[in-house]
Amino acid sequence: MNWNRRHLLGLEDLDREEIQHILDTAESFKEVSTRSIKKVPALRGKVVVNLFFEPSTRTRTSFGLAAKRLSADTIEFSKTGSSTSKGETLKDTARNIEAMGVDIVVCRHESPGAPHALSRTIDASIVNAGDGPHEHPTQGLLDIFTMREAKGGLEGLRVLFLGDITHSRVARSNIWGLTKMGARVAVAGPATLIPSRIKELGVEVFHEIDDVIGDFDVIYILRIQFERQKANLFPSLREYKRLYGINKDRLDRARKDVLVMHPGPVNRGVEITSDVADGNQSAILRQVTNGLAARMAVLYLVSAAAKGGK
Amino acid sequence: MNWNRRHLLGLEDLDREEIQHILDTAESFKEVSTRSIKKVPALRGKVVVNLFFEPSTRTRTSFGLAAKRLSADTIEFSKTGSSTSKGETLKDTARNIEAMGVDIVVCRHESPGAPHALSRTIDASIVNAGDGPHEHPTQGLLDIFTMREAKGGLEGLRVLFLGDITHSRVARSNIWGLTKMGARVAVAGPATLIPSRIKELGVEVFHEIDDVIGDFDVIYILRIQFERQKANLFPSLREYKRLYGINKDRLDRARKDVLVMHPGPVNRGVEITSDVADGNQSAILRQVTNGLAARMAVLYLVSAAAKGGK
Amino acid sequence: MNWNRRHLLGLEDLDREEIQHILDTAESFKEVSTRSIKKVPALRGKVVVNLFFEPSTRTRTSFGLAAKRLSADTIEFSKTGSSTSKGETLKDTARNIEAMGVDIVVCRHESPGAPHALSRTIDASIVNAGDGPHEHPTQGLLDIFTMREAKGGLEGLRVLFLGDITHSRVARSNIWGLTKMGARVAVAGPATLIPSRIKELGVEVFHEIDDVIGDFDVIYILRIQFERQKANLFPSLREYKRLYGINKDRLDRARKDVLVMHPGPVNRGVEITSDVADGNQSAILRQVTNGLAARMAVLYLVSAAAKGGK
Repeated sequence: MNWNRRHLLGLEDLDREEIQHILDTAESFKEVSTRSIKKVPALRGKVVVNLFFEPSTRTRTSFGLAAKRLSADTIEFSKTGSSTSKGETLKDTARNIEAMGVDIVVCRHESPGAPHALSRTIDASIVNAGDGPHEHPTQGLLDIFTMREAKGGLEGLRVLFLGDITHSRVARSNIWGLTKMGARVAVAGPATLIPSRIKELGVEVFHEIDDVIGDFDVIYILRIQFERQKANLFPSLREYKRLYGINKDRLDRARKDVLVMHPGPVNRGVEITSDVADGNQSAILRQVTNGLAARMAVLYLVSAAAKGGK
Repeated sequence: MNWNRRHLLGLEDLDREEIQHILDTAESFKEVSTRSIKKVPALRGKVVVNLFFEPSTRTRTSFGLAAKRLSADTIEFSKTGSSTSKGETLKDTARNIEAMGVDIVVCRHESPGAPHALSRTIDASIVNAGDGPHEHPTQGLLDIFTMREAKGGLEGLRVLFLGDITHSRVARSNIWGLTKMGARVAVAGPATLIPSRIKELGVEVFHEIDDVIGDFDVIYILRIQFERQKANLFPSLREYKRLYGINKDRLDRARKDVLVMHPGPVNRGVEITSDVADGNQSAILRQVTNGLAARMAVLYLVSAAAKGGK
Repeated sequence: MNWNRRHLLGLEDLDREEIQHILDTAESFKEVSTRSIKKVPALRGKVVVNLFFEPSTRTRTSFGLAAKRLSADTIEFSKTGSSTSKGETLKDTARNIEAMGVDIVVCRHESPGAPHALSRTIDASIVNAGDGPHEHPTQGLLDIFTMREAKGGLEGLRVLFLGDITHSRVARSNIWGLTKMGARVAVAGPATLIPSRIKELGVEVFHEIDDVIGDFDVIYILRIQFERQKANLFPSLREYKRLYGINKDRLDRARKDVLVMHPGPVNRGVEITSDVADGNQSAILRQVTNGLAARMAVLYLVSAAAKGGK
């Protein structure tokens, strides 16, 4: 297909063929990471800036390393110690970065839509690395890539997301992407943490999991955000673990070939026990590995489109 | 001409031919930034260290990117979390960096003369990236480059600096550079913020601007430092805006082709309104773009001189 | 010899031939740092991560620069602002880094044995950059390299370590390495700061130095850690300086060709006076220069061994 998007803002915008194309491109880049010299010259002389307004180790490092594997130059820009403490707005910061001739801006921001606003403001490719609770499209892509790789396909795949759906940009991007790829998605968690309108997306909702856990090919466990718990949106941790925590006993009720996923970092002993996180069915570290490939694919595609595309 | 300076410490030291040579070199490097592969091998295998003792995003990023475009390796060294918290002196820090075989040290420090002291201490090229209120020579160069580019020449150009002249290293470097290049410089601002001896540099002084604003080709608006205001060196902000703030109404009294400049980051609605900052006459983002070219030129020239020069 | 270690965890593990081989390799890399283009392609396409859980400027910068000189890509990971504040364990952090396809992990951690645990956990080369009071092997190697370079050999060389031996990973690594290379090592300091079992390593112990200082080829002055002093392990600073501080007068009692060393950063006027630190006999800055060469050698050797070795 002919990829012509200059930005990657969310999976809601993409159609099935576009997602397919990113996954296929990621597959060819995954091979690069197995070489002794893990580097291709695709983005030589391009500049990728990590513009992170929220703390991040994994995503920032993953994007930085993906850019270096493509031979791009990278610039780190994080909120701490920067001019934003002098009251500079996101827009001014971005315009200044643009004026330096940056090619791709990887942006994480606490406000939903911030990367979209950037894409209308500056002349550079924007990649959304998480905008509040809205989307985290490269996480969605690496997750979907991992499911396709492990299960051989996505059509008809049954995927359960477990936990705080309301505040999860990871769940949101995955749901957009998976439903477009023909997977059947369900969510489960406390009623206070599941948005009421989610059924409109074609998603099934459960509040109790033991009877249904055997129906899924993939169990995707979301990270508990303890700050939500303080806001009384949660039952007690003990109650949460009892109802939704995935331990060995509960996993025994699932299919033998079920794939266990988690976006990391894991709260061991809370939403998932260590034996499950480190067990045979866990794809957690494979997700990290695939993150490199998925992000290389996205950086490569938006950069190529920037030459002529929209 | 034959450039033979190993360091760039300030514009006060340079003569007209030297400034001209940097501007011409910057012009040829500006072309590099328009290429698809924005990289030349001029400084391959050289190491440039950003040694910043004051927080900075723009200047640090600009130097870092300029170094990468020249294919140099870069090292970031900032005060936070470093050995300077163990009481290490600037001199010891610099000597250690020198011992690692660094080629160019880009230094920002709160003490006037710190880069000059470094240049006498260690065997590496020193580039002053701002020494207290003293000089900020690459800012001066990028500003002068921008004026030359926009106006076609500097001889006889009439430039007004507006604001806190006393504490401004930006104004100081610009004044040294511009007067050498044959421009006619004036300053305006509250009497408390204009050094009494500035007339000795051949600079005109105004305390009221509405009657004279029409006489200038360039209006250079300095950033308000709010900490000065607390020190009672300022009238109230409202008073400052009324007397010296540049808004659309006041700009209408200026020449139609006047160039509006600001070193950034802008305090929107204080020393400059948003419509002026983002308007047609504003060169603010062009200054940022030209900063890359000017810094590439400086890094290139001092590195070349280091081989044989003084 | 045939180097086949994938990790460098400590000098206690190495035998004489292995240490010799690192020193010889460092010697050939030292020549690279004298070239105009200080770069060799040995580690092109490899990724070196600086995983530092304690603040560090010198060691981190030295490793980073060594990696760049070998053409490796580098990633900086420090504790501040990272996921470890979200409660992620060292093990999880390391596994995630591993999953990104990193080749070498340079690790500093406050717990003795942390790098050893990593080497059993993840499939990457681990280089110990300091594990609590246990070992700091690349510091030991650069020190021993410096002694060999200055003195022409190590066999029979008489070396005195001065200060807080108990808490010094620098002393510990040096003692392991030097005794294996045939040097004769002594330590001196307050009885509270010298471990009682150190004599078992073949090390002589002194609590008073003026009568014996003339017997040594090298005086290695350790850095005072003021936090120890607060813990009442120290006499007063004045008392410490009187008994163990190295000033010009005391140095006059040493051999004329004695080599003065210190791992930096120096507390000027405490354990060493400025005239001694900056004097002719001081090798302090040469240690920093040699640190690059020693670390290039270590990164190169563990990377080469990773291909086939254990």
